[in-house]
Amino acid sequence: MNERSRAGDPAPFYEAHVFCCINERPAGHPRGCCKAKGSEGLRDYMKARAKELGLARVRINSSGCLDRCELGPTMVIYPEGVWYNVASRAEVDEVLQKHLVEGGRVARLMLKPEDKTPPAR
Amino acid sequence: MNERSRAGDPAPFYEAHVFCCINERPAGHPRGCCKAKGSEGLRDYMKARAKELGLARVRINSSGCLDRCELGPTMVIYPEGVWYNVASRAEVDEVLQKHLVEGGRVARLMLKPEDKTPPAR
Repeated sequence: MNERSRAGDPAPFYEAHVFCCINERPAGHPRGCCKAKGSEGLRDYMKARAKELGLARVRINSSGCLDRCELGPTMVIYPEGVWYNVASRAEVDEVLQKHLVEGGRVARLMLKPEDKTPPAR
Repeated sequence: MNERSRAGDPAPFYEAHVFCCINERPAGHPRGCCKAKGSEGLRDYMKARAKELGLARVRINSSGCLDRCELGPTMVIYPEGVWYNVASRAEVDEVLQKHLVEGGRVARLMLKPEDKTPPAR
């Protein structure tokens, strides 16, 4: 349940639903794009690792442009609505373990609504 | 806030985030696919209508396979996690108005976790 839930809404179909942006823009586009930053490979890796970890009620999905291109590669995890910039396999592993297995957060990779550039490493 | 939220999570970036499956499977695949049921055109229509309605904090997104192919065209609206089978422009309009503008539900088009076939019309 959350502020937007209503009495009688069905139970969640997935416990956690991850959307990884794999949108591609033309080369040289001022906003850049997640695909050019390797998001497809990272999504593939995340999907495979989630399976290996036995996260059966977690779905790793591709998505079209999430419109936070400057912050990419971006992903958002629902229903909690937490956004991450995840730029390497090591960071994917960190989000899987800390957020999806343990229910915690990888604070240094999280995106705030007002962010205009990715978190510094 | 919901069961998966944590103190300190940033405010939501979108008020409502809609993911429309546009996955395509090879012709004749036993599960079918949302694209073959017209999901791309319906997503385009939904995006355009949401804009016309001035739903600035609502994002209509494409997604890869949501893995509920038999129930397609499927969409899911977060953070509430409500799933719909939406098969025509009239039904898109209904979900936009009733769910996204008014915060209600289009009960007859909603999917329950155990559903194996789309709601009867």
